[in-house]
This record gives sequence, C-alpha cells and structure tokens, in this order.
Amino acid sequence: MNATTRRLLTIVTEAALEQLLVKDLEALGASGYTVTDARGKGSRGTRNAAWGESSNIRVEIVCDAATAEAIAAHLQARYYAHYAMILFVSDVAVLRPEKF
Amino acid sequence: MNATTRRLLTIVTEAALEQLLVKDLEALGASGYTVTDARGKGSRGTRNAAWGESSNIRVEIVCDAATAEAIAAHLQARYYAHYAMILFVSDVAVLRPEKF
Amino acid sequence: MNATTRRLLTIVTEAALEQLLVKDLEALGASGYTVTDARGKGSRGTRNAAWGESSNIRVEIVCDAATAEAIAAHLQARYYAHYAMILFVSDVAVLRPEKF
Repeated sequence: MNATTRRLLTIVTEAALEQLLVKDLEALGASGYTVTDARGKGSRGTRNAAWGESSNIRVEIVCDAATAEAIAAHLQARYYAHYAMILFVSDVAVLRPEKF
Repeated sequence: MNATTRRLLTIVTEAALEQLLVKDLEALGASGYTVTDARGKGSRGTRNAAWGESSNIRVEIVCDAATAEAIAAHLQARYYAHYAMILFVSDVAVLRPEKF
Repeated sequence: MNATTRRLLTIVTEAALEQLLVKDLEALGASGYTVTDARGKGSRGTRNAAWGESSNIRVEIVCDAATAEAIAAHLQARYYAHYAMILFVSDVAVLRPEKF
C-alpha cells in the first residue's frame, strides 16, 4: 500500500455547535470532514460541571500536520472555555494524500 | 501543539448493554465516554455464531493507560464469553490531559 | 494487557454503497465490520467536485495487514474513480486476535 501519513483529528462536542464548527474547519483549510451523532458524558470546559448525558456530535478531519495544529489552536482559543469539547489526534495512513 | 498521550479505547458491542457498560466505565474511572449507534457483523463470543446485522453501539473512552487496562480486563472477564463485543486500543494526543 | 496489533481501516463513503461494500468486505476476508451513519463534505473522486453535505456511512474493519492491503487495493480499483470515498488506516491493539 503506497500510503502517506496524515493527521486524524477527532472532536467530540455539543451538537448545537455543528454549523459554527464546520465553518471554522473550512476556513482553516480542512478539505473534508465527517460528522456522526453521538451521546455521552464528560466534564465541561473549565467549570468541570457534569454534562449529563447530552446530544453530541463526533467530527473527524483528516489533514496535514499544519492544518491539524491550526484547527487545534483555534478550537482551544475559541471554544474550550465555554463549551463541552474534547479533541484527540492520531496519525493515519492514507492512499490519496492530495485529497487531504 | 502541547500534547500528551492518552489511550483511546473503542468498544463495539450489543446496543442492549449500553446502560450496564456505562456504569462499569464510570466505576472504573473513565471521566467521559462517547456513544454512537452502529450496525455490523462479527463473530459472537466463544460460540462464534454469526451476529447477523444487528443493533450495536460504538463506545469511545479516552483515558490514561492504567484506566484502559482496568476497563479492558473488566470487560474481558465480565462480557466476552456471553456477549458480542470487540475492543481495540490506540494512542492519541490530547491537549488537556487533566480532563482524561 | 496481552495485546496483538491489527489494522483498523476506516472508510467514509456514500450511504448508497453500503450493501455492495459489505459484500466486498466479506469476500475479501473481513471477519466483521461496524457501520455508522454520518454526514460530511469532501472532494469527490477524480473530478474533485464538491460533495456538498451528503448522506454518508463510516465503516470500520479490524483485520490483519494482508486483509487490509487487499481491501484497500480493491476499493481503490473498484470505487475511487466513481464514488466519494476516503480510506485511512492505523494500528490498534486487540485482545483476541483470533477474532480479526
């Protein structure tokens, strides 16, 4: 498999943020994203109050390292203090690097 | 990106187990989890009978290595023989390690 | 954790392909798969026309390296030119390697 490494960013956050978030991702250079509906529980922002079970989305973006850094920095600055949001990153192999 | 490594556990199992499983995860120290509805096919427990297409859930937990070990050991002891369940683990980078 | 490494393949594609794709996966030796409904945006095939927000599926397969290669090669040959499809691969640790 003639594969190239890219970053896989996964964001889990409040469903109400979907439209805002998607605009941010496009503005920051993501060439695509995948959204699935989810539910779950976690701590909320800096206040650490329980979410309770809530309506969440899970968003995945495959992109290069620089775009991943830019997205992570933006989300941290813009949303972390006020919204329930987690983000995690790993490396993945892709076949068509020009798509990401 | 000032990132720290955590474990990402992904569990795919029967939808009927959701409430039990979520209680187990909290008791074992997970600070959060994400559930999505899924469908699929696989072998079932030790009996290896086909699931057929069925109503599943996909559960993700980001946690430290010790919690991941505890969850994996518990699920294996408690569910593997009797339920359709798979679990896989990878490393992910996170920005706010205190949340996990 | 007495874990073994397997490949995790994630495919995101058009929802209409689900039945075809699942047959391909079984024929190519996947012992299971997980499907979730998703939506998203990306470039399409070689034409690079926008998908727009569309009805997608996200399919995961945990399998050995040879099966992963076979699936990736087949999907690339059979679908990439004509369908919106991305595929990414990573390594995961599993507890019961005989299941994958």
